[in-house]
Amino acid sequence: MGKQATSDTVDTVTTGPIEGSVKHYIEVDELRIPVRRINLTNGEHFDVYDTSGPYTDDNAAIDLEAGLAKLRDAWTKPDVEGPRTQLAWARQGIITPEMRFIAAREGVSAELVRAEVAAGRAVIPANHNHPELEPTIIGKKFLVKINANIGNSAVSSSIAEEVEKMVWATRWGADTIMDLSTGKNIHETREWILRNSPVPVGTVPIYQALEKVNGDPTQLTWEIYRDTVIEQAEQGVDYMTVHAGVLLRYIPLTAKRVTGIVSRGGSIMAAWCLAHHQESFLYTHFEELCEILARYDITFSLGDGLRPGSIADANDEAQFAELRTLGELTKIAKSHGVQVMIEGPGHVPMHKIVENVRLEEELCEEAPFYTLGPLATDIAPAYDHITSAIGAAIIAQAGTAMLCYVTPKEHLGLPNRDDVKVGVITYKIAAHAADLAKAHPHAQDRDNELSKARFEFRWRDQFALSLDPDTAREYHDETMPAEPAKTAHFCSMCGPKFCSMRISADVREYAERQGLTDVEAIEAGMAEKSAEFADAGAKVYLPIVS
Amino acid sequence: MGKQATSDTVDTVTTGPIEGSVKHYIEVDELRIPVRRINLTNGEHFDVYDTSGPYTDDNAAIDLEAGLAKLRDAWTKPDVEGPRTQLAWARQGIITPEMRFIAAREGVSAELVRAEVAAGRAVIPANHNHPELEPTIIGKKFLVKINANIGNSAVSSSIAEEVEKMVWATRWGADTIMDLSTGKNIHETREWILRNSPVPVGTVPIYQALEKVNGDPTQLTWEIYRDTVIEQAEQGVDYMTVHAGVLLRYIPLTAKRVTGIVSRGGSIMAAWCLAHHQESFLYTHFEELCEILARYDITFSLGDGLRPGSIADANDEAQFAELRTLGELTKIAKSHGVQVMIEGPGHVPMHKIVENVRLEEELCEEAPFYTLGPLATDIAPAYDHITSAIGAAIIAQAGTAMLCYVTPKEHLGLPNRDDVKVGVITYKIAAHAADLAKAHPHAQDRDNELSKARFEFRWRDQFALSLDPDTAREYHDETMPAEPAKTAHFCSMCGPKFCSMRISADVREYAERQGLTDVEAIEAGMAEKSAEFADAGAKVYLPIVS
Repeated sequence: MGKQATSDTVDTVTTGPIEGSVKHYIEVDELRIPVRRINLTNGEHFDVYDTSGPYTDDNAAIDLEAGLAKLRDAWTKPDVEGPRTQLAWARQGIITPEMRFIAAREGVSAELVRAEVAAGRAVIPANHNHPELEPTIIGKKFLVKINANIGNSAVSSSIAEEVEKMVWATRWGADTIMDLSTGKNIHETREWILRNSPVPVGTVPIYQALEKVNGDPTQLTWEIYRDTVIEQAEQGVDYMTVHAGVLLRYIPLTAKRVTGIVSRGGSIMAAWCLAHHQESFLYTHFEELCEILARYDITFSLGDGLRPGSIADANDEAQFAELRTLGELTKIAKSHGVQVMIEGPGHVPMHKIVENVRLEEELCEEAPFYTLGPLATDIAPAYDHITSAIGAAIIAQAGTAMLCYVTPKEHLGLPNRDDVKVGVITYKIAAHAADLAKAHPHAQDRDNELSKARFEFRWRDQFALSLDPDTAREYHDETMPAEPAKTAHFCSMCGPKFCSMRISADVREYAERQGLTDVEAIEAGMAEKSAEFADAGAKVYLPIVS
Repeated sequence: MGKQATSDTVDTVTTGPIEGSVKHYIEVDELRIPVRRINLTNGEHFDVYDTSGPYTDDNAAIDLEAGLAKLRDAWTKPDVEGPRTQLAWARQGIITPEMRFIAAREGVSAELVRAEVAAGRAVIPANHNHPELEPTIIGKKFLVKINANIGNSAVSSSIAEEVEKMVWATRWGADTIMDLSTGKNIHETREWILRNSPVPVGTVPIYQALEKVNGDPTQLTWEIYRDTVIEQAEQGVDYMTVHAGVLLRYIPLTAKRVTGIVSRGGSIMAAWCLAHHQESFLYTHFEELCEILARYDITFSLGDGLRPGSIADANDEAQFAELRTLGELTKIAKSHGVQVMIEGPGHVPMHKIVENVRLEEELCEEAPFYTLGPLATDIAPAYDHITSAIGAAIIAQAGTAMLCYVTPKEHLGLPNRDDVKVGVITYKIAAHAADLAKAHPHAQDRDNELSKARFEFRWRDQFALSLDPDTAREYHDETMPAEPAKTAHFCSMCGPKFCSMRISADVREYAERQGLTDVEAIEAGMAEKSAEFADAGAKVYLPIVS
């Protein structure tokens, strides 16, 4: 497998199910759809979408050296005219195993999956050389997805840490991960990640190309870049960020910005364009690039190299000029049968967020939008997971298909394991809030289950149904550590003597007993029935726990 | 002062300025307006709104036993017909010292303050018996405010902890605090808080009244409640939550809800109404209550006793029926010269948030809206500061004037000191994001200053300008602890060899040197100028730190 690190450097990944749940598989024809099955204390169970791969399966043997099972090797697809990509198959009316897998995962029809992919409104990033992948779909008619960035840099982190970050991020719900390594061992790190990743892996090939020219962007060439793309394509990278929209004439539009060009890829290409006084090789060789990506069915993630890096720079001419070019490139990529998504900002105040989505949809034929936040204010370093979750929820509600997470370390340092988890959970919140707001079928089921558990004082179920059972339980235990508190009909907020939830439950019990749930009956019969309640009232409010 | 706790139980409050800043006062006539002055490393300074009172003033002597200086005792107001309330003065065209203080704090005209208060679109909660107060305004034309709840319960926390929580919450930016104590020493706790609080203090008097009847809501009477209100009014409580809109006929509307009645006040009143089969004493004695509040200039916070406690229950008939009644009560209170704000939800999915504001404004004559979040999903206990910050930012953008914070412990336990800080900072983010989205004058200045500092690698300034300098610095130091890193022109994300911010700064420097900031010049002169850049390029990208 070409992994030079010894296995004992990466044998520390987290395994075992999340508390309160077990790995379960739903059989659909020859496919096994993974779910996290939460077994409730009332005897029922609740299944949730599961990105964590075999690592949370107590029955799976994890061998990082061998990598995950090559699930998709057995999934045959017909030969068709043109490239062997999900887009090409979809256009010819073919429903692939990947599409069926996704349909079962999302609880939608396989035909919807096919139609959205065919229209270019959804993508399935799945390199033929990443057979370990459990396919996922990115498109506005499906569940909003989140990406977690990992990767080492020149000053920090090892291969072992990066593999564990991938396992850890997908454990908590990352739908894809991007390996943004810039330091040593880029190839080996990526190999370990790909062979062990159950989710699509994205990269920004220009980062590795830059390492090959010792960090001097002006020395980059098409040949060096192309070879890097092929190297990564062979390894199995599922989607690649390409900043081909940074045109020469757009660069000076950033000169008066408060924060200039903040995208690494964007600034690399800007430096190259200015130094060579010509359009970048990404732009001039774009069709050749399409041909390479088509061979592997790698999805383009057209990068926003001129995205705003501050509230002041949001929605400016530089940003939208590039977006128009990305629209042109989208058409070209699709004409080659290559799937495309479009990257978006960045830092944007709330009232300017929706315009980004409308414009992206208009200019880029509704290709899936994939945004970084956006951060709704600049003034809270150390809390940019929150500043950006606000923007992320709003932009996802407006139609963004995938959200790139932001961790508390954004702008300050590299995220550690805890930061990765906080970033992922925060973005699961933003994505789910948007799923609710878009009335995605069944999205509210989990809210309802958790709220019912809360109302019925089923504390263990409340923890198990939450995005982060460990932390929910830990917080509860800080005030009420004793085991009986997990079944107590009160909590530390009000204490045992008075509890609004308890009183409310009593009201409901009474009302239901009296047939008070019908509004007309209420209006008519209020007097008599309330009197009955008064008679029954004395015992209702007695302390229920001494 | 009636404080029975010994002073050594409450001598541990946090004092001293926030890192990177000093307390400063701007003299406006006889008034001294407090600001947090951030001294920047480039010799400039930046002043920010400051809620922290004398505790962050190195020159102030703090004596908790004596309480804060009685600032407002010297602020005389004319006698007018009717009650001595800010509303009555405003209606008669009188600009009070409180209004001038607020105008200077907000950077707006005193006439705007007066006009908004006169119209009932803004309130100044300021009990005559709380002279220690530095006045603040709550209204949609002003900066969005945030409230932090503190208070002990039957199972947890002491007076000392509560006073420190007040000091701590206002240090980080809480504009008001609510003392929601339900356990022992309610009166004493409140006295200590009021005498030492520089911000308005709110309460829910029914909580203390309930203690007086040993926790049995059916035993509550108007007389017990009235006496409790007067007791708290005499102490100086600035605003009071009153759940007078919970009418008998609305209660059964909650019976089919997923989470019934979740407001403590709401469930207390519901229990009383059902047991007595009559409208609550809050409703039937509302005019008498208005007369009491008018005497002290206490502001009503009309409570939403039937607010939704889950996504499933949002915007239902029970909630909006109560809101209509709050609209009627608003008119009555204002006819008595009493200031009014309206409390709002709760748990609401994003697409149903704006309707809450529109309806509140329509039914309640645009009285300031004061909401709890709302939480945009139910599935993330332990992260409800985040689920609710999403809702809070959106509802504030739509016109909500004050946001009640939610801490990570919501639904799980009582917040500790760290939780209070995280809740406050999170809500400052939501409030500020809304200020930006509403294009509040000068709101973006701080974003611009911080972004400029970021772009210029002034790390210390970036920390100092942030909402939480301590945590920003701590996170930076985790990866780059050495002192030189604070002035280094790179960060741990990319390492010293390559940095997009650095390249971007070089692009700008070049463009400005060449006069490239004018777009027409760019289009015309691109060729020649880019060639010049190429000549200069070689040295631009050398490592700047070895």
